[in-house]
Amino acid sequence: MTLFRLDASIRPEGSVSRDVADTVQSAWMRNHPDDTVVRRDLTADPLPSDAWMSAASATGVPEEERTPEQRSALELAATLADEVLAGDAAVIASPLYNFGVSQHLKTWIDLLITDPRFGPGAQPLAGRPLTVVMARGGGYGEGTPREGWDHATPYLRRIFADAFGADVTVVVAELTLADVVPAMAELRPIAAESRAEAHKLAEATGRAHAERVRSATRSTSAA
Amino acid sequence: MTLFRLDASIRPEGSVSRDVADTVQSAWMRNHPDDTVVRRDLTADPLPSDAWMSAASATGVPEEERTPEQRSALELAATLADEVLAGDAAVIASPLYNFGVSQHLKTWIDLLITDPRFGPGAQPLAGRPLTVVMARGGGYGEGTPREGWDHATPYLRRIFADAFGADVTVVVAELTLADVVPAMAELRPIAAESRAEAHKLAEATGRAHAERVRSATRSTSAA
Repeated sequence: MTLFRLDASIRPEGSVSRDVADTVQSAWMRNHPDDTVVRRDLTADPLPSDAWMSAASATGVPEEERTPEQRSALELAATLADEVLAGDAAVIASPLYNFGVSQHLKTWIDLLITDPRFGPGAQPLAGRPLTVVMARGGGYGEGTPREGWDHATPYLRRIFADAFGADVTVVVAELTLADVVPAMAELRPIAAESRAEAHKLAEATGRAHAERVRSATRSTSAA
Repeated sequence: MTLFRLDASIRPEGSVSRDVADTVQSAWMRNHPDDTVVRRDLTADPLPSDAWMSAASATGVPEEERTPEQRSALELAATLADEVLAGDAAVIASPLYNFGVSQHLKTWIDLLITDPRFGPGAQPLAGRPLTVVMARGGGYGEGTPREGWDHATPYLRRIFADAFGADVTVVVAELTLADVVPAMAELRPIAAESRAEAHKLAEATGRAHAERVRSATRSTSAA
């Protein structure tokens, strides 16, 4: 079986979203020790910034009339689609950047959607378990001044659950800037608690997804 | 006086958001015939995809220790900030892409925010009138199946109104795909109506902003 993992943090080291996603992945692997993890790292391996425009402009153009740029953009989109579809489950790890979705993650989503398998109404991930790991620098909880300012999580739910059909669990760690911003020093205990809770939920989610996919496979084999 | 205009549509021709933004601009110019329009076109002049990562990584690094990439990214961010701040009013024109903010517009916002003038709590556009022109391919109105699927408009309000302090008016044209998608052919009359309404509101908004900025200038001169 295969786990698909995507990382969008621009920090290769010290990233909370990567750290919590590691916990999901480890929990999965303990239950599926022989599994493959297919990874897409948007920082280590950046997507070309013009690929989406080329791919989008190819819509409706017959294959033989496409430019080399359009062909290569659509091939890249097909590779991204293959990677996600290879996963019996998925982990999407991203920080909240400027109250919104990571620009690199949006680039990946836009390009992915140019592949016909991810087109309108396709529900390509129907029934597959998918974990969104969201790391937020500040506090966005109920009753805080920034309640409702996280515009990334609802968007990622919309895409992965409503548009792609996945069964989405969101794991949030917040106040991640408390450790580095002196003015947030007094929030460090709450930040540590939030991170510990995120790891606990990540562990439980990774294990639950692994067990669920395994038993689904068993029922299929038995049927 | 100066109008700042940003375009995010990936279509240089045939773009509804550009067309409606033209109406805002014309209405402004009829009231301010000698004005300058400062334009930023994210398609004609794409931002380098690695600039934001370089600029963000320069935070906290003393000026003399910055890499050439960090310096040039921060210079670009300062240019973007200068452009926006030059505007006594602004027009931000963008399509809704895959239910979210344009990846290129998010790249611009991320980079802009690395400039200290647009940093946390700065409210750099306090009191300035700003029009968001949003073009949506489908229908997202109240009671439709896609109500709530436009995740770009609330995000742009958050950034321009709540984070930057601008006085935001949103002009929406929707069902823009009805003219090109055969399955949407029967929606063409509603699409045409939506576009006509958008132009009407764009005209009124451009005129109102021009008059307001002019009278504000008069009061300042008189004071």
